[in-house]
Amino acid sequence: MIIKRRYGLSILFREILPPLVILTGWDCVVVILFQIFHQEWMEQPALPFSLMGSALAIFLGIRNNAAYARWWEARTLWGAITNNCRSFGRELESLLGGQPSLARAMAAYPYILKSSLSGNEPDSAIQGLLDADTYRFVFSCTNPANALLYRIGQKVRTLVEERHIDGAVHGTVDRILSDLANAQGGLERIRNTPLPVQYSLLPKVITHLFCILLPLSAVQTLGWITPLGSSIIGVLFQMLDRSGQNLQEPFKISPHSLPMLTMSRTIERDLLQPLGMEYHPLPQPRFGQMP
Amino acid sequence: MIIKRRYGLSILFREILPPLVILTGWDCVVVILFQIFHQEWMEQPALPFSLMGSALAIFLGIRNNAAYARWWEARTLWGAITNNCRSFGRELESLLGGQPSLARAMAAYPYILKSSLSGNEPDSAIQGLLDADTYRFVFSCTNPANALLYRIGQKVRTLVEERHIDGAVHGTVDRILSDLANAQGGLERIRNTPLPVQYSLLPKVITHLFCILLPLSAVQTLGWITPLGSSIIGVLFQMLDRSGQNLQEPFKISPHSLPMLTMSRTIERDLLQPLGMEYHPLPQPRFGQMP
Amino acid sequence: MIIKRRYGLSILFREILPPLVILTGWDCVVVILFQIFHQEWMEQPALPFSLMGSALAIFLGIRNNAAYARWWEARTLWGAITNNCRSFGRELESLLGGQPSLARAMAAYPYILKSSLSGNEPDSAIQGLLDADTYRFVFSCTNPANALLYRIGQKVRTLVEERHIDGAVHGTVDRILSDLANAQGGLERIRNTPLPVQYSLLPKVITHLFCILLPLSAVQTLGWITPLGSSIIGVLFQMLDRSGQNLQEPFKISPHSLPMLTMSRTIERDLLQPLGMEYHPLPQPRFGQMP
Amino acid sequence: MIIKRRYGLSILFREILPPLVILTGWDCVVVILFQIFHQEWMEQPALPFSLMGSALAIFLGIRNNAAYARWWEARTLWGAITNNCRSFGRELESLLGGQPSLARAMAAYPYILKSSLSGNEPDSAIQGLLDADTYRFVFSCTNPANALLYRIGQKVRTLVEERHIDGAVHGTVDRILSDLANAQGGLERIRNTPLPVQYSLLPKVITHLFCILLPLSAVQTLGWITPLGSSIIGVLFQMLDRSGQNLQEPFKISPHSLPMLTMSRTIERDLLQPLGMEYHPLPQPRFGQMP
Amino acid sequence: MIIKRRYGLSILFREILPPLVILTGWDCVVVILFQIFHQEWMEQPALPFSLMGSALAIFLGIRNNAAYARWWEARTLWGAITNNCRSFGRELESLLGGQPSLARAMAAYPYILKSSLSGNEPDSAIQGLLDADTYRFVFSCTNPANALLYRIGQKVRTLVEERHIDGAVHGTVDRILSDLANAQGGLERIRNTPLPVQYSLLPKVITHLFCILLPLSAVQTLGWITPLGSSIIGVLFQMLDRSGQNLQEPFKISPHSLPMLTMSRTIERDLLQPLGMEYHPLPQPRFGQMP
Repeated sequence: MIIKRRYGLSILFREILPPLVILTGWDCVVVILFQIFHQEWMEQPALPFSLMGSALAIFLGIRNNAAYARWWEARTLWGAITNNCRSFGRELESLLGGQPSLARAMAAYPYILKSSLSGNEPDSAIQGLLDADTYRFVFSCTNPANALLYRIGQKVRTLVEERHIDGAVHGTVDRILSDLANAQGGLERIRNTPLPVQYSLLPKVITHLFCILLPLSAVQTLGWITPLGSSIIGVLFQMLDRSGQNLQEPFKISPHSLPMLTMSRTIERDLLQPLGMEYHPLPQPRFGQMP
Repeated sequence: MIIKRRYGLSILFREILPPLVILTGWDCVVVILFQIFHQEWMEQPALPFSLMGSALAIFLGIRNNAAYARWWEARTLWGAITNNCRSFGRELESLLGGQPSLARAMAAYPYILKSSLSGNEPDSAIQGLLDADTYRFVFSCTNPANALLYRIGQKVRTLVEERHIDGAVHGTVDRILSDLANAQGGLERIRNTPLPVQYSLLPKVITHLFCILLPLSAVQTLGWITPLGSSIIGVLFQMLDRSGQNLQEPFKISPHSLPMLTMSRTIERDLLQPLGMEYHPLPQPRFGQMP
Repeated sequence: MIIKRRYGLSILFREILPPLVILTGWDCVVVILFQIFHQEWMEQPALPFSLMGSALAIFLGIRNNAAYARWWEARTLWGAITNNCRSFGRELESLLGGQPSLARAMAAYPYILKSSLSGNEPDSAIQGLLDADTYRFVFSCTNPANALLYRIGQKVRTLVEERHIDGAVHGTVDRILSDLANAQGGLERIRNTPLPVQYSLLPKVITHLFCILLPLSAVQTLGWITPLGSSIIGVLFQMLDRSGQNLQEPFKISPHSLPMLTMSRTIERDLLQPLGMEYHPLPQPRFGQMP
Repeated sequence: MIIKRRYGLSILFREILPPLVILTGWDCVVVILFQIFHQEWMEQPALPFSLMGSALAIFLGIRNNAAYARWWEARTLWGAITNNCRSFGRELESLLGGQPSLARAMAAYPYILKSSLSGNEPDSAIQGLLDADTYRFVFSCTNPANALLYRIGQKVRTLVEERHIDGAVHGTVDRILSDLANAQGGLERIRNTPLPVQYSLLPKVITHLFCILLPLSAVQTLGWITPLGSSIIGVLFQMLDRSGQNLQEPFKISPHSLPMLTMSRTIERDLLQPLGMEYHPLPQPRFGQMP
Repeated sequence: MIIKRRYGLSILFREILPPLVILTGWDCVVVILFQIFHQEWMEQPALPFSLMGSALAIFLGIRNNAAYARWWEARTLWGAITNNCRSFGRELESLLGGQPSLARAMAAYPYILKSSLSGNEPDSAIQGLLDADTYRFVFSCTNPANALLYRIGQKVRTLVEERHIDGAVHGTVDRILSDLANAQGGLERIRNTPLPVQYSLLPKVITHLFCILLPLSAVQTLGWITPLGSSIIGVLFQMLDRSGQNLQEPFKISPHSLPMLTMSRTIERDLLQPLGMEYHPLPQPRFGQMP
């Protein structure tokens, strides 16, 4: 995630560069053919551009709103993971009487979730946090994050039985695990369900078509400054389209993805620090981006 | 659900082909009558197109937003089914002490829900997961999914009584069943309550009318390229209209419906795998679509 | 609620017929006065129509969105009634040990709520479901649905005391009653709080004004086809306005109201069928409408 | 709150009258200066009105949506007060065994909340519902509604101790008090946090500016009917602006404020009627408005 | 937060002054070059301004809606902090039997949260509310607010053990702490996750570009009044852009930030006043702003 605006502008510019170059090239071709070779069929001012613009605006409006909502929902669900991990840490101490190995197991949970969401190798921190037996069990399952919650549930049960803890207290702690399962399910839903193909694909196609037709409709009035005018407009619409694309897959590795490593480390710190245990430091931003 | 964009474009194109052919034919008729037979009454540039476009934009905007919201709500409710089935599996083990037959009964729940939502025959997997008595009871009721939750509730009660489990723990487990009932009710609500007829029907009618009138208003200025210009605009609005139609009934069998078989299999796997029991593998995507 | 589109179109058309006839008559008057009697003051092309259209679009946009949101919220709250009635049935059996008379009392609840929302006579089904004493108490109160929840709460208490049921279990069952009270309160809120008069009244007034001025601004360019062009636009805006009006009062008896009888019967069936008790069959749709 | 549309139109008209008179006066000045005194600098058709209109539309769109959302959220939170007061009444009887003085204290709660939200004197009904000691304690605090919830919590505790009621049951009842505290906090949030000054103030300023410039840009084409055309448009935009203003402060005394007295009386009735106790009747609407 | 509109207008005006001066200067340069030095390349009426305006409107629309939603969500989450602190105070008395030091510790919580959100020094009030040991522990952690919740959880546990309080009651109180953790996590999410750089940065850049090109396209028709017309439009769009910028970071010290000191003091008062303890008075608004 980009946290420094200074870098943000240059990243956005770099992303937009390839289409910008092609677009400007095409604009120049059009203006040269028209102004020098007098290919007058090139000018098409009568194309119903405003109607096309309306359709594009509806598409981009719905898509960008939906993409932003997906991104913010993903962030909110990661927030729920953070909050419930913290609350589990507090309840482990105040309701169950504390057990360091269980706090460490919960600290491993966001790392496991992170790797299954981004499709990467499991983070190296996991092995230090889980005991060997739990590690083996968790990674023998197809959904390791779900398996870890399952195993934590079993360990809580053992604790409850050993320490003769009240059923209502047990229910309260288990509610936290259910809330974690709900947040995890929400994150998997966002990863597994792409935006409908109508909204992820068509805006891009229409934007490109729009940019190709643009100089044809403008060359007669704008003349030699066509490439300038047409490029400004083209870049604006390309950026609008790309803003939606960047946000619609919040877990894909890109400068715009959610800072899942930072959040996992924050959870680990908030769980282990009050117990006086060691934890990994937060990562530093690189080139204005949080990993 | 389409998960590969490559296929998505061709599916969208195939859906749009019949209206596109008819539209282009009509455009050609208009241009020929006007350019060759000089039927000048064909040109109607003064038709108040921008006002018509405004009304259409409001209709399409509201409808497509509502359709997308229905689709995403349906997906979110299936997510709640997934999360609560998983949590039931965990609580069955950690709060109630485990019982494989009950885990299997819960694994049958999404299959039963799937068939009643899509109106298909019950999935063959159900018979392997439910014991004969439960199977008979469940399918003797008009709403089998509700009947299964009812029966699971009874079995939980038997377990609670046999194992002298605390009332608060019983309440916690029952809360999961209530959450499942809420999600199921939400899904049935979406299936049983179509979009109001104003928003499901009128956009389609107005879009068609709009496309029919389009060449009449454009033929004078566009001349021989009328079919091209008019078709581009027509296809855009047809696609906007169809995007909403595709999403407004998320359980109807189509390339755009929710991947209910995949989700049911995922739930079965997440419930039975940690117990070391057999489960059906996930289905493979076919032509870029998850079934 | 209209569930068949075929009927839907004819219902919508019949609703729009009276204003359509008046509008077309007015259009004809304008065109005749202008074309035959040369009343040239009739043409007012300079009226700032696009500004008026913008204001109307904002009004209609906000109103129709709000009306649809009200309608869908009402439907969702009825869904919550359905879900919680079902869950009460399940918990009555699995948590409290079952009592047929209490299941029947809960089955009467949606019927009572339905009649108080629509302002009709109490449904005849109620008398068969409630015992005489409860019936008398409930209808002696100004808010019978609230009184019934109150009485069900008392009966649950008696059950809890007789059968020595745990307090936590009692609390869980009572939570369902609170959820029902919340959904009921939400439905009463929608019925008792109309849309603000600015949004329920002004769009209608402005739409009519707009349709009256429309031919004045179009008669010069459109000439004899003014009534056609003007009517198409007029009908579109009338339908937009009416779409909002239809949805803003979801309990008023109309083809667009929520199918409260169908929902009440569904709840009755889902409550009584698993207990092997008799219930009323679902009503059949008439002319494509669910009652 | 206006519940009769007939009155609504006249109230809206009366509110809009002063600006309408001034506006029409200004329009007449412009048209006279232009048509009679030939002050041609008065005509400014080239002013970029459509751009100004776009900015105004964005401002009004966001503001009116936000104002309506505030109004509806306030109404929904009052609904939550209603529901939870009712549920408290039910639970007082079914979970705690009943106590008339506690039901009366809860019936006083909405009256106290109402007066602190509207900044009025405490309602006279409160003294009849609270015993002298509670009355003194509650009004010695800066936030009487909060103090009353606090006191009710203490009384519930006494009841629990006297009657040896289970802790889980106590927790369930206390949950209702927490839900009331949440709804009360939400209402105070809406009262204490006005819309950001950008959205409460700028739309008004821009609308006035827009209306002042309007005749200047229209006088050339519209001529003597300028005051008519300009006033229609001006009134529309003034009404749009005012619609938002009316809804943004839902507790301010105006015909558009929420019917807090009616709601308080409804709660009192629903709490005391099933216990066979006396209660104030609902107020009658005056001039189509519920107080 | 600005609570007096009178001051609001002047604050907004002061914020807009620098760009306004520069803009007007540039407008004058353009008009002088064009009118006096006849630099005719300065007039560019053909620039596709309406397309640019559409793209800008989509950007500003999405951004301002998102910024307002962030601001209101932040306010709502602070509301949840308020409500849950109050409920904790009530439950501390009615469920746990009361303990003044614990009420004071909770009163310190919003102050700690406030300073970590705004990045300021801890408020001086904290030291008076926490005992020395807790103070040291809390500020030895990286996330003091989380550490304080943790410590309060421990103290509640001690209370529960000493006074032999029921597990269900303990669970109910702990639920309040979890709700506080959820609200705190939400606030940290808003502070740590800026709006995506596309929506925080691009609207500003495009608005400036738009304002620079504006006089070029208007100078031919507007002539000497160009600076006036162009500035009005320019200021409108600058204000729209700034409205979003002001709201997107609700904790940054500015006249538009949330009144976190006022809210913290309110919580302290509502917690300590019913116990008859001393508390800080609410701060007074200065220049119409609540701190």
